[in-house]
Amino acid sequence: MTMMNLMNLLGEKKYREIAVKLKEQNVVDLADLLMGLDAELQPLVFRMIDKSKAAEVFSYLDDEEQQALVQKFTPGEISSILEALSADDAVDFLEDMPANVVTRLLENVGADTRNNINRLLKYEEDSAGSIMTTEYVTLHQEMTVGQALDKILRVGINSETVYTCYVVERRRLIGIVTGKDLMTNHRDTRIADLMLKEFICVHTTDDKEDVAKRFSKYGLIAMPVLDKDELLVGIVTFDDAWDVMTEETTEDIQKMAAMESNDESYLRTSVFSHARHRIIWLMVLMFSASITGAIITRYEDAFAVIPLLVSFIPMLMDTGGNCGSQSSTLVIRGLAIDELHFSDTLAILWKEFRVAILVGVALSVMNGIRIFIMYRDLGIAIVVSISLMATIMVAKLVGCMLPIAAKRCKLDPAIMASPVITTVVDTCSIIIYFKIATMIFKI
Amino acid sequence: MTMMNLMNLLGEKKYREIAVKLKEQNVVDLADLLMGLDAELQPLVFRMIDKSKAAEVFSYLDDEEQQALVQKFTPGEISSILEALSADDAVDFLEDMPANVVTRLLENVGADTRNNINRLLKYEEDSAGSIMTTEYVTLHQEMTVGQALDKILRVGINSETVYTCYVVERRRLIGIVTGKDLMTNHRDTRIADLMLKEFICVHTTDDKEDVAKRFSKYGLIAMPVLDKDELLVGIVTFDDAWDVMTEETTEDIQKMAAMESNDESYLRTSVFSHARHRIIWLMVLMFSASITGAIITRYEDAFAVIPLLVSFIPMLMDTGGNCGSQSSTLVIRGLAIDELHFSDTLAILWKEFRVAILVGVALSVMNGIRIFIMYRDLGIAIVVSISLMATIMVAKLVGCMLPIAAKRCKLDPAIMASPVITTVVDTCSIIIYFKIATMIFKI
Repeated sequence: MTMMNLMNLLGEKKYREIAVKLKEQNVVDLADLLMGLDAELQPLVFRMIDKSKAAEVFSYLDDEEQQALVQKFTPGEISSILEALSADDAVDFLEDMPANVVTRLLENVGADTRNNINRLLKYEEDSAGSIMTTEYVTLHQEMTVGQALDKILRVGINSETVYTCYVVERRRLIGIVTGKDLMTNHRDTRIADLMLKEFICVHTTDDKEDVAKRFSKYGLIAMPVLDKDELLVGIVTFDDAWDVMTEETTEDIQKMAAMESNDESYLRTSVFSHARHRIIWLMVLMFSASITGAIITRYEDAFAVIPLLVSFIPMLMDTGGNCGSQSSTLVIRGLAIDELHFSDTLAILWKEFRVAILVGVALSVMNGIRIFIMYRDLGIAIVVSISLMATIMVAKLVGCMLPIAAKRCKLDPAIMASPVITTVVDTCSIIIYFKIATMIFKI
Repeated sequence: MTMMNLMNLLGEKKYREIAVKLKEQNVVDLADLLMGLDAELQPLVFRMIDKSKAAEVFSYLDDEEQQALVQKFTPGEISSILEALSADDAVDFLEDMPANVVTRLLENVGADTRNNINRLLKYEEDSAGSIMTTEYVTLHQEMTVGQALDKILRVGINSETVYTCYVVERRRLIGIVTGKDLMTNHRDTRIADLMLKEFICVHTTDDKEDVAKRFSKYGLIAMPVLDKDELLVGIVTFDDAWDVMTEETTEDIQKMAAMESNDESYLRTSVFSHARHRIIWLMVLMFSASITGAIITRYEDAFAVIPLLVSFIPMLMDTGGNCGSQSSTLVIRGLAIDELHFSDTLAILWKEFRVAILVGVALSVMNGIRIFIMYRDLGIAIVVSISLMATIMVAKLVGCMLPIAAKRCKLDPAIMASPVITTVVDTCSIIIYFKIATMIFKI
């Protein structure tokens, strides 16, 4: 059903027809439809959605819509949605509500759900604990495949969480059994004979970005989460890990453009908050760039004699900045996806050194020829070409080293991207340029 | 087992012990271990790996290792690996081999495998067809759950591919059944009563990036791929979609730093190829930056009179570039993850306009005060502040508009990032600066 259809049917008050059409929709598309509606129509349409799908649709809504909807709900409706949500989705929703509202909402749900939710609410924001869910299937090694399938029928909530079952012994994880094993073995087979004793797991306090990287590396559907006593307390599913990966990449890209990271969407972020996230880095970089300016004033005599010198400043600064950004970007991304490590430092330096020579020679020669043709001044052409070559060498080496140094100092390498590199390289290129110019022209 | 252990055991020729320890390892870790070994030891260790895991380990090796290994294999070994690889992994491997080698390798495999592989080799590099696999489970609606499970036992290859089964009627996809449905329903239940008739699918010619976005949106484990006649020809699994997402993000980030995209890893890319990917954009931007230089020469008189003017050029250029990069980065990322669309153009412009005013006022005031304190020259402080304010306004608006314009012209928005924006904004800021300076100081 398109938005247009829905609006028309709503206008004609054909509610039964809407309910039938909503049945055919995927939960993600239903959430999209709801978010496209005016606020006052949302509760009406939400109530027409099939009970079995309502909680999942709710979990796909943006924070604003969730909060607005919940205000119009009866306590009964709230409790049935909270009970039906998987624990991690319930926590995602509650985390954005004021504390007193959370307490009131939790009064309406059963003790089990409340305990689960309260436990998850305690984990640190960026930890594996904060993205895990407590809905998973545990088995015992003396069970048979038949008993395991019966248990899944009883407790299995949604698909991602039943395709890996966890064999425990006094809450300690001793093996895993895949859904495929259960599907393709006789009902009498013992779990002990099926289970894999080698498995990948994470801990509640692990950084969620590292968890996402493990998913990426091993291509798993779900991963068990252990607490500090090595007891099984939850699982992370691949779809949540995928979201973490997208979020972390967005944050990295924002940092690379000199912004503080922000996980709200662009349009939902207020003007004031946009400005706040951008202004600090701009301020720091603006004052750093003034250093380059102060250096230029030292060479006032030089460009008083040869004013043409000034006109090559933008080209030198931009090209140096671009060369440095290329190197730093490659290194930052390599570090982010675990393709490069600190131990590769020398290999990276040696590679960038050779690339810088190739790129430097090509650009300097082209630029020298252009300047000679345009200004018929061999001296200027030589000075600018040598400066460009030196600037490119410095830019490439600074560009590849700063992200590695940041990583070494436990800083995020992403901050050492284009803006910072450009500012650092600018200062170098101006010094190099005027030193060479004053030397060659003996000013 | 660590690399060190393995090397020691290899040195002592304790091959049986190695084989036992290799058994406990995950396939991804085994591939890592193999790639850490010298080339001459790789075939020896590879042959010690369990037959059941060997093909999967092979699929996780880098191209170079695969090619080196295969040269040392007997025709029998090659055919058993090719048969055991899933079709998409086999194709990935074969795509990097010379055509005559591919023909020779395919002579050793059965007709079915050969046909499957040949079919997949025909799809375009960036299409859904190129990342799909032909191993999937088809069911018929008159089958029962029991018969379905028996079929999975017979044909199911690896886990990701059995958790969604496809109900077909003369190769046309009419519904899907999840593994969970099969696990939690009685063996006599008819597939027709279980199957979902609403499902998300893609077509062989769809861009693989769009396929990855659908996975991200719907959180699915696998998605069916239809050909142009709407017949089912393959499936894409989430782990392959995840790889596509990572690859495409890396490409975007490279383009944003003015490089041609390159899907080889940093260290594996040759110096020459690194230089080639970087040089064209640098050249284009270098010559564009010369325009800014040429504009400066028009104002030689101005800075002959007030040399101090030159020293604010780097600060204005850098701050303008940074402001523009922030806006363009937010828009590029928003477009990439489908959070922003062409229809949001006005909302984005209006938001950036207001952000630019806030940021512009803050930076201009701070900078004006600094200049006044340092140089005790109110005229200069005012000229630079007004220029900075105007530059920031232009930078933010150019920065958010160019990526949207690129998208509209079917270009990749990622090329409109920091380097291009900086070059465009530089020209604007220099013109604004000298226009204002010459006007106020009447030079």
